[in-house]
Amino acid sequence: MNPAVFIEAIQAELQRTKYGQYPPELYDPIRYIMSLGGKRMRPLLTLMATYLFTDDWKQAIRPALGVEVFHNFTLMHDDIMDQAPLRRGQPTVHERWNANIAILSGDVMLVNAYELLLDVAPDKLKAVMSRFNRTAAEVCEGQQMDMNFETRWDVTEAEYIDMIRLKTSVLLGYALELGGLIAGADAETNRHLYEGGVNIGIGFQLKDDLLDVYGDPAKFGKQVGGDILANKKTFLLIEALEKATGPLNDELNGWLTKTEFDKAEKVQAVTAIYDQLGIRQITEQRINAYFARGFANFDQLKADPTRRLLLTQFARQLVERES
Amino acid sequence: MNPAVFIEAIQAELQRTKYGQYPPELYDPIRYIMSLGGKRMRPLLTLMATYLFTDDWKQAIRPALGVEVFHNFTLMHDDIMDQAPLRRGQPTVHERWNANIAILSGDVMLVNAYELLLDVAPDKLKAVMSRFNRTAAEVCEGQQMDMNFETRWDVTEAEYIDMIRLKTSVLLGYALELGGLIAGADAETNRHLYEGGVNIGIGFQLKDDLLDVYGDPAKFGKQVGGDILANKKTFLLIEALEKATGPLNDELNGWLTKTEFDKAEKVQAVTAIYDQLGIRQITEQRINAYFARGFANFDQLKADPTRRLLLTQFARQLVERES
Repeated sequence: MNPAVFIEAIQAELQRTKYGQYPPELYDPIRYIMSLGGKRMRPLLTLMATYLFTDDWKQAIRPALGVEVFHNFTLMHDDIMDQAPLRRGQPTVHERWNANIAILSGDVMLVNAYELLLDVAPDKLKAVMSRFNRTAAEVCEGQQMDMNFETRWDVTEAEYIDMIRLKTSVLLGYALELGGLIAGADAETNRHLYEGGVNIGIGFQLKDDLLDVYGDPAKFGKQVGGDILANKKTFLLIEALEKATGPLNDELNGWLTKTEFDKAEKVQAVTAIYDQLGIRQITEQRINAYFARGFANFDQLKADPTRRLLLTQFARQLVERES
Repeated sequence: MNPAVFIEAIQAELQRTKYGQYPPELYDPIRYIMSLGGKRMRPLLTLMATYLFTDDWKQAIRPALGVEVFHNFTLMHDDIMDQAPLRRGQPTVHERWNANIAILSGDVMLVNAYELLLDVAPDKLKAVMSRFNRTAAEVCEGQQMDMNFETRWDVTEAEYIDMIRLKTSVLLGYALELGGLIAGADAETNRHLYEGGVNIGIGFQLKDDLLDVYGDPAKFGKQVGGDILANKKTFLLIEALEKATGPLNDELNGWLTKTEFDKAEKVQAVTAIYDQLGIRQITEQRINAYFARGFANFDQLKADPTRRLLLTQFARQLVERES
C-alpha cells in the first residue's frame, strides 16, 4: 500500500463533505479554512492506524476527517485569541470576515466534527466519543495554559511540556487511537497507539522550537529567529531562563526587556546565550527521548510488520523534517 | 408525580456535575454561568417527556443537563457577540474575565454538553447524537441570521419566524424529543414531541416580543418598551414595517432614525402606531396559532393521560406567563 492512496482518499472526502449552506456567513468560513491546506497529518494517522488491523480502512475516512475538522476549528478560534492576521499565508477568518463570524463558524465546525465522528459502527461509538471528548477538553486546557504562560516568566520545563502535550500532542494520540478503536483493536493496542502519537507529538513540537533557532535558513520555511524576536516562551527560552545565572542571566533578561534593538543582533545574541548554556544539546536530547519513546510504543503494536512500517516511516518523516 | 421532584433532581445533578479543574480560567466561567440560575426549562422538558413513557425518568437526568449546558454555552458565546454586559443581572463571562476566556470556556462547555449527552443506553446513542448535532447546528444558524438581521430593514415575517425557530425553538423541540428517544418511544411519537416543542417555542418567543410592548409593567420584569427604544427587530416591528403605508410609514421610520428623543415619548408614539395597525391583535393571533399547534402535537402523544397532563400543564404555564 502506498500512503498516497490514503492521502487521495482524504482529499476526495474533503471535496465531498458538505458542512452546511445557510446562512453563508456561517458555512463559507469553514470551507475557506478547510481549503487552506495543511499536511492532513491527523486523518492520515487515523487511516494508517486503522489499516494496521483491517483491510477496511475506508470505514475510517469520515471519522478521520472529523479529527481534521476539529483541528481546523481550534485554529479558527485560536487565531481570534492570538489576533493572528494570517493562517497558512492567507487572511484568518476573523480578519476576512469578523470575530463574531469566526466564533460562531468555529462553533458549528465543532458540531460538524462530532457529526463526522458519528460515522462509526454503533458498538464503537461510545468509546470513540468519550475519548474524543476527553481529548477535545484537553486541547482547550492546553490553549488556556498557553495563553496564561504569555504573562508569566516562571514557567517550568514540566509545565511547558504539559502545555504542548495538551495543546497539540493528545490530538495526534487520539488520531491514532481512533484508528485502533474503529478497527476493533484491544485496549492495550489502543494505549500504545495513543501514547506513541503523544510522544511523537511532543518531540515534533519541541523540534518546532528548535528549528526556529537552529534550522537551516535555506530549508526552514519561516524566518529563523522569529520566536527569539517575539520573546516567545519556547522550550529553549524556558530552559535558558532556568539555567542562566550571573552575567548571562542579566544579558538574557536584558534582551527580553529591550524594546528597541537591531533584529539580527538580538537573534545572534540570544542564540549565543543558548549556545553557551548548551540549550541546543539539551533540546535535542529531549526531542530524541520523546521520539524514542514514541517508536518504542509503535514497536509494541501487534500488527503486520509491513503495515506497521507504513506508520513508522511516516513518523520518521515527521521526526526528521527540517522545516 | 409532582414536577418539583424533577426540578430537585436537576438541581441535585447540577450540584454534582464536575466540568473540569485545571486551568481554573477555563472551568470557573462554566461553574459561574451555570450558577446564575434560570428556569431550567429544557432539562425539565426532557424529564417530563421521558416520564411519559417510562418510570425510569432518572436515566435522563445527565443527558437533560447536557441540553442545559449546551443552552448556557450558547448564552456565553452570544453574549460576546452581542457585547452584552449583563446576564441574569450579573456580569457576563467576557466582562468578568475576558473575551478569549469566554470563547475557550464556551468551547469546552460544548464538549461538556456532548459528554453529558453520551450518558444514554448504547442503542440510543447514535440517534441522540445525530439529532443533537442537527439541532446544535441550527441554533448557530439562527444566531447568525439574527446577527444578519441587525443591519437589514427588509426582514420578512417568514424570515423572522424561521430565525426564532432555529435560534431558540428547535432546542425546546430537541429537549422533548430527547426524552422520547431515551424512553424508546417510536419515531412518530418523537416527531410529535419535537414539533410540539418547536411550536410552543415559537409562540413563547413571539410572546416575549409582545410582552415587551404590551406587558403589564407591574408584572413584567424588564422595562416595558425596551425593544422599541433599541429599534430591536421584533415580530411587532417587522409586521409594522410591512403594514405601514403613507404618513404612518413616514412616522414609524422617523422614530427609527431619530437619534435624540424622549424615551417615554418614543415608546408611546411607536406603540400608538402599532395600535393603529392592529399589530397587537396580529401578534396575539399568531402566538395563539403556534400554541394551538403545539398542544395539538401533544394531544397526539399516546401516553398515560395524567403524565401527559404534567407536560401540558407546564406548557400552559409557559403560554400564560406575563413576564
